[in-house]
Amino acid sequence: MSDYGQAFETMRAKAGPVWDAYTRHGFVDGLRDGALPRAAFLHYLRQDYIFLTHFSRAWALAVVKAGSLDEMRACAGTVHALLEDEMKLHVKICSDAGISEADLLATRERPENAAYTRYVMDCGFSGDFLTLLAALLPCVLGYGEIGARLVAETSSDTYGDWIATYGGGEYQSLCRDVGQLMDSALAARLGAGYTELPVWAKLCDTFTQATELEVGFWQMGLTP
Amino acid sequence: MSDYGQAFETMRAKAGPVWDAYTRHGFVDGLRDGALPRAAFLHYLRQDYIFLTHFSRAWALAVVKAGSLDEMRACAGTVHALLEDEMKLHVKICSDAGISEADLLATRERPENAAYTRYVMDCGFSGDFLTLLAALLPCVLGYGEIGARLVAETSSDTYGDWIATYGGGEYQSLCRDVGQLMDSALAARLGAGYTELPVWAKLCDTFTQATELEVGFWQMGLTP
Amino acid sequence: MSDYGQAFETMRAKAGPVWDAYTRHGFVDGLRDGALPRAAFLHYLRQDYIFLTHFSRAWALAVVKAGSLDEMRACAGTVHALLEDEMKLHVKICSDAGISEADLLATRERPENAAYTRYVMDCGFSGDFLTLLAALLPCVLGYGEIGARLVAETSSDTYGDWIATYGGGEYQSLCRDVGQLMDSALAARLGAGYTELPVWAKLCDTFTQATELEVGFWQMGLTP
Amino acid sequence: MSDYGQAFETMRAKAGPVWDAYTRHGFVDGLRDGALPRAAFLHYLRQDYIFLTHFSRAWALAVVKAGSLDEMRACAGTVHALLEDEMKLHVKICSDAGISEADLLATRERPENAAYTRYVMDCGFSGDFLTLLAALLPCVLGYGEIGARLVAETSSDTYGDWIATYGGGEYQSLCRDVGQLMDSALAARLGAGYTELPVWAKLCDTFTQATELEVGFWQMGLTP
Repeated sequence: MSDYGQAFETMRAKAGPVWDAYTRHGFVDGLRDGALPRAAFLHYLRQDYIFLTHFSRAWALAVVKAGSLDEMRACAGTVHALLEDEMKLHVKICSDAGISEADLLATRERPENAAYTRYVMDCGFSGDFLTLLAALLPCVLGYGEIGARLVAETSSDTYGDWIATYGGGEYQSLCRDVGQLMDSALAARLGAGYTELPVWAKLCDTFTQATELEVGFWQMGLTP
Repeated sequence: MSDYGQAFETMRAKAGPVWDAYTRHGFVDGLRDGALPRAAFLHYLRQDYIFLTHFSRAWALAVVKAGSLDEMRACAGTVHALLEDEMKLHVKICSDAGISEADLLATRERPENAAYTRYVMDCGFSGDFLTLLAALLPCVLGYGEIGARLVAETSSDTYGDWIATYGGGEYQSLCRDVGQLMDSALAARLGAGYTELPVWAKLCDTFTQATELEVGFWQMGLTP
Repeated sequence: MSDYGQAFETMRAKAGPVWDAYTRHGFVDGLRDGALPRAAFLHYLRQDYIFLTHFSRAWALAVVKAGSLDEMRACAGTVHALLEDEMKLHVKICSDAGISEADLLATRERPENAAYTRYVMDCGFSGDFLTLLAALLPCVLGYGEIGARLVAETSSDTYGDWIATYGGGEYQSLCRDVGQLMDSALAARLGAGYTELPVWAKLCDTFTQATELEVGFWQMGLTP
Repeated sequence: MSDYGQAFETMRAKAGPVWDAYTRHGFVDGLRDGALPRAAFLHYLRQDYIFLTHFSRAWALAVVKAGSLDEMRACAGTVHALLEDEMKLHVKICSDAGISEADLLATRERPENAAYTRYVMDCGFSGDFLTLLAALLPCVLGYGEIGARLVAETSSDTYGDWIATYGGGEYQSLCRDVGQLMDSALAARLGAGYTELPVWAKLCDTFTQATELEVGFWQMGLTP
């Protein structure tokens, strides 16, 4: 079992080849061995800035839909980390790469980018806390899995900062917390036998569809 | 077992004295034996017009949150009936009672009125389809239960039209459909053993709290 | 001025080449002259079934977010027409083309399909009634404009039913009503000088981004 | 002009006697001169704990509906302060007063409490960022105004901690920030002449209705 929790482990297995298409995408290979063109990486950074804005909104929606103060605090902590740390770090990384904050704000959102974040938002608005988390997990935990693997496999320093961020201890710890949040949230609502319930199949479909949309995001990254 | 379905039967029993406080409220007694002051009834009609607007919105939200085309159609049918039939009938009843549509639109919403409808809306927005239905049931099925009982018990013609509407065949049929919708929606998501799951206790709490807010609505009706 | 209203006219002009990329897409050319491969059309019909489900949800959300009974009724009428007429007609058209309802239900939603509908849903949930309408207009009125043009330009009977549906009187009348709904909704909230307000630029951006996502939908249609 | 901003100043004036009924309620008089029964204050503290939970959710919803990173950060900062500081302080105050956290969690929400918070939530879900802020202002800024006045007028130490909290520099600074947030949000969407637009009258109605529901909250406080 992965250390990102039991629910993730099962959902990941059910997503099967779609999960591999996401976590072993050509964009990821390019990060690993440094073959990813610089223009593609900069394009990805620009789109990722817009992504992080909507991702923060999605975690704020999770606060709204939480069922306990513990859940609210866990999700609000993620919002805080995204807006105060990750987005500011992102601006700095972009600045080092020659992309100004004005450039970031002027970037036009690509359809493949909107596709994933708006899917997540609708899962949250139309569904409940569990549906929203199911749509968020592929991003959070997929990056964690990719980061951890690339730390071990990388053969190039070119994208070493990216790999160190997502493969590093802090992000891996966040992944374990989010995996645990999902496990607890499931148990608190559906009990220990949740994988036997019809709603579980729906949650797994949501996870798989969100993963497909992440594949599209990487694909977009390759075509600046 | 009531013929409004199994879930309602269980929720109703759990709500216990709160359910009785609602369905056997003094306002209801006044409708039954004609002792309700005319001014209170007209006041109730005015507030009920605003109520029906938000009630229609709540059923439209149920369309948004439904999980299948059958659920969507059932809820959209209720929206249609509310906006095209019930609200137009309501305007006519008010007109016969000397309240113009301009009067209705100028009526200020009372806090006890807003309390119930906004509680329902938040259940729908923050929760899922089941949570929304759990908050809607006390109104739909409570009126059905009251209507059916008053048909049998009434000793006065004064509010005979009201009693005939909610105790009549058409409304009773709607109640059976809505009860069935809840039973099917529970089974489709949580399986046959849903009363054993933690989420069931939450749904019953929602039902009870919504019932309490209905008590407040009747109470408001007594104080024009 | 188009007869779909003043707001649409202005938004359409601002969308410029994106609007042309949508309404004069190769898929549309293929419908006009019959050159669209049958497999592409059937694939489009299957995806459109899923689209119509979410489109109905979006119009139900418009009922929730409406500001008056007239607005609620206009939007609820569209929900009713979609669920009771258009989707049933769609099932029949598909059946005639050899696609069973079971096939439709088993169709996997393509990312480009999800992209548009979830964008619309998020506009509705995160924004207000105007934002939701701005995201819905490209679909409703774009199909109207395409249909009207193809009635005049078509040189083939192959997709004559499709052209007759969207170019026909009933759909054109719906388009005029929806255009009028937008004009009235703008005036009721923002007054006559709404194009001078900052929010207008945002609404035009929403319209343009939604149009871009419609381009993606046609593009998907070409690749079964 | 009050230093809580221009929009608040105008909305407050329009709310007129309803604003006075709220800010000069008997409960407030009792806090000022120490005449409020201890049981009423403890009852208020218990209900306020539930209130703060939903208030935090409402500010999280403001993050979701914000239109810029600055707005998102301002609202997320409030969520953070509520969940990490104010609610923990509240638990401590209650504990000092002999109310355990288990007591707080077991408290049944009173209808007048639910009425205000669910009204706010529905304003946020059904409307836009401005509508949500209009519903939040009476609470945030009303407490600020009451606190500032009571610092000057108080004749008793009994509820001195409460007065010092809301009349103190930190809370007053928050009030100025929130007032400024509203002014900026209005200008960014509706321009400088927003008070001339139809939507402004609606926002003022929302503010007034929310204020009425705050009157109900104080009234509830007097009847443990």
